[in-house]
Amino acid sequence: MSDRFNTIIVLAAEMQLCLENILLKNGFSKERADQISRVFTNNSVDGVYTHGVNRFPRFIKYVQKGIVQKNATPSLKAKFNGIEQWDGNLGPGISNAMAATAQSMKLAAEYGIGCVALANTNHWMRGGTYGWQAAKAGYVFIGWTNTIANMPAWGATDARLGNNPLVIAIPYNNDAIVLDMAMSQYSFGSMELSAMRNEKLAVNGGFDTNGNLTNDPGAILAIRRPLPVGYWKGAGLSLLLDILAAILSGGLSTQQISKQEDEYGLSQVFVAIDIKRLPDHSSIPKLINDVISDYKQSIPQDAFSAITYPGERVLKTRKQNLETGVPVMQQVWDEVLKL
Amino acid sequence: MSDRFNTIIVLAAEMQLCLENILLKNGFSKERADQISRVFTNNSVDGVYTHGVNRFPRFIKYVQKGIVQKNATPSLKAKFNGIEQWDGNLGPGISNAMAATAQSMKLAAEYGIGCVALANTNHWMRGGTYGWQAAKAGYVFIGWTNTIANMPAWGATDARLGNNPLVIAIPYNNDAIVLDMAMSQYSFGSMELSAMRNEKLAVNGGFDTNGNLTNDPGAILAIRRPLPVGYWKGAGLSLLLDILAAILSGGLSTQQISKQEDEYGLSQVFVAIDIKRLPDHSSIPKLINDVISDYKQSIPQDAFSAITYPGERVLKTRKQNLETGVPVMQQVWDEVLKL
Repeated sequence: MSDRFNTIIVLAAEMQLCLENILLKNGFSKERADQISRVFTNNSVDGVYTHGVNRFPRFIKYVQKGIVQKNATPSLKAKFNGIEQWDGNLGPGISNAMAATAQSMKLAAEYGIGCVALANTNHWMRGGTYGWQAAKAGYVFIGWTNTIANMPAWGATDARLGNNPLVIAIPYNNDAIVLDMAMSQYSFGSMELSAMRNEKLAVNGGFDTNGNLTNDPGAILAIRRPLPVGYWKGAGLSLLLDILAAILSGGLSTQQISKQEDEYGLSQVFVAIDIKRLPDHSSIPKLINDVISDYKQSIPQDAFSAITYPGERVLKTRKQNLETGVPVMQQVWDEVLKL
Repeated sequence: MSDRFNTIIVLAAEMQLCLENILLKNGFSKERADQISRVFTNNSVDGVYTHGVNRFPRFIKYVQKGIVQKNATPSLKAKFNGIEQWDGNLGPGISNAMAATAQSMKLAAEYGIGCVALANTNHWMRGGTYGWQAAKAGYVFIGWTNTIANMPAWGATDARLGNNPLVIAIPYNNDAIVLDMAMSQYSFGSMELSAMRNEKLAVNGGFDTNGNLTNDPGAILAIRRPLPVGYWKGAGLSLLLDILAAILSGGLSTQQISKQEDEYGLSQVFVAIDIKRLPDHSSIPKLINDVISDYKQSIPQDAFSAITYPGERVLKTRKQNLETGVPVMQQVWDEVLKL
C-alpha cells in the first residue's frame, strides 16, 4: 500500500517540458503545448495537485477520445457592448478559459465592466488560474463554471447539481487575493486522497449511507453524497451559478451535460472590472492593506490556527515548490511518463 | 415567558399604513414614506420577519439619532461607461439600494452589463428585495453589501468579518429565483429567535465557549461566534465581498465601519445584466424550466425533505400572508405602535 503514497520530487521546468512533449506528440501546436503544459505545471507548483499534473492523464485521454478538440479556438456568437457570448468549440478548457479571461479584460478596459459567457467548452482545471491571470493584470475578476452533476440538492440523495466552482480575484501587492471555491465542502479529489491516507476530514464533508453527516471520506465516496458548502446555501448558490452560466452563454446546463457519458460542453462566465477606471484607484492598495492587516490581527483559536487570506498559502507553496521541486505521487508520475 | 412569543396577525395593508404614518410623523416625504413602509411590509409578508417589521423600530431609532438622513438621495461620484460610483449620502438604505438597483438596470440596458457601486449608505434590510426588483423587471442581478464586523475569520475567535449578504436573482415564470445568503450560517436574528423558543438549530451554527461547534443558539450568542458558511470558504468569500464593495464604491470597509459606534456608511455593489440583449433570450425560460423541473425530481432524503429552489418558499409565504395576514410577535407590534 505504501507505494501508492510514495511521493517523488519533480522540478517544475522538468515537469513542464515533459508535459509539453506529450502534448506535441498528441498533435498540439507548439504555442498551445507550451500554454497548456505551463498551466498544468503551475497548478501543481501552486499546490493544487488535483487539478495539476494529477489530472493530466485524464486530459490526454479526453484528447485522444476526441472530446477535447485540440486545435479549436473560441468563436464569437454574439455581442452587445460589455457582454459577449462565445462558443468554445470544445477546445481545451484551459486555452478557452485563458482566451475568455483576456477578452473579459478587454471588454472591461472599454466598458468598465465586461462579461464573456462561454458555451461548449471543456473543464478549465483550476479556476484560480484565471483569477490570477486577471488580477495580476490589474483587473478584478469574478468567474465560474458549471460541471457534470456531482452533488445532491439540499435534502436529496441523488446528484443533480454540479459543484460549480466560483472564483473571485483582486489585485494585491503585485500579486493577488484569489478565492477559488467549489460548491461542495471538499472536492472528490481531496476526499479520495484523505481516504487513501486513512485520514478523517477536518469537518463534515458529506453523508454516509444512513443519511448522517460524516467526516469519513470513504463513507461519503461510497455513496457519492458530498455536502454543499453551508448546507442549503451552497446548494442554492450552485443552482443559480449553473442557470446563469447556461443562460448567459447560451450553452448547456448541468442537467444537459449530465446526460452525456463524459463531462464536456461546459458553460462558463468571466466578468472583469477595470479598477484603473475608478477615480480613487490609487488609494485601493492602501485600503486592501488595511483590511488584510486588520484581518491578520485576528485572535487565533489556538496555537495551530493560521489566519490566512484566500490565495496566501498558494504564494508560500509556489515559492517552496519552485525552489525545491514539486511533490508528485509516484503512481501519477509513472502514468504521465507512459503517455 | 409565553407572552414574548405570542404572535398576532396584522393585515399587510394595515401594517403598511401604520409604518407609513410613523415615517410621515418622522418627517419623511409622502413618496419616501410610501416606498420604505412598502418594503418593510413586503419583507414581513415574504416571511423575512427579521428584516421586516421586526427591524422597523431600530430603523426609526437610527433616523431619530440622525444616522439615517431621511431626505438624502444618492449622488453620482464617477462614471466610466458601464460602471458607476455613487455616494449614498447616508440616506435610508432601502431608498438608496432601490435607486442603485434601478440605475444598474439602466446601465445594463445600455451596456449589456452594468455595475453601480454605492458608498456611504445604510443597512438595506433584506438583500432579496433588490434581487426581486431587478428580476421582476427582467434582469439578472448580482449584488452584495458589507456590514459591521460580526463574524470571526476561520480559526479566529474575534469578529473582524461582516456577514456580508450576497444576492443573486434570475427572472423566472413572471417571478424570480432569488438567492439571498448571508456569509454566516445563521443570522443573529434567527439564532435569537431559536434561543427564545428554546430550540436547537438544524445544523451547527457557531462555536461555544470551548471552541467546539454547536447547534445551541444560546451558546453561540453568548460569545457571538457564528459559523461562516462552509467554514473557511464563507469566511474567505466574506473577506473578498467586503474588499470589493469598498474598493469599487470608494467607500468604507467592514474594518472602517466597525470603528464607529453604530452600523452606517456601508458599501454595496449592484450588478445587472440585460438578458434581453442576448440573441437566444427567447429560449431562456424553457432552459430554466428544464433545470428546475429536473432539480425538483431529486430523490428526497426522507418524507420531510422538500426540494425547493431559492425564493420558492418566499412565494408560498407571500401568498399565505397576503391572504390571511402577517404573523407579528406581540412585543414587536407593541413597540411599533408606540413609535
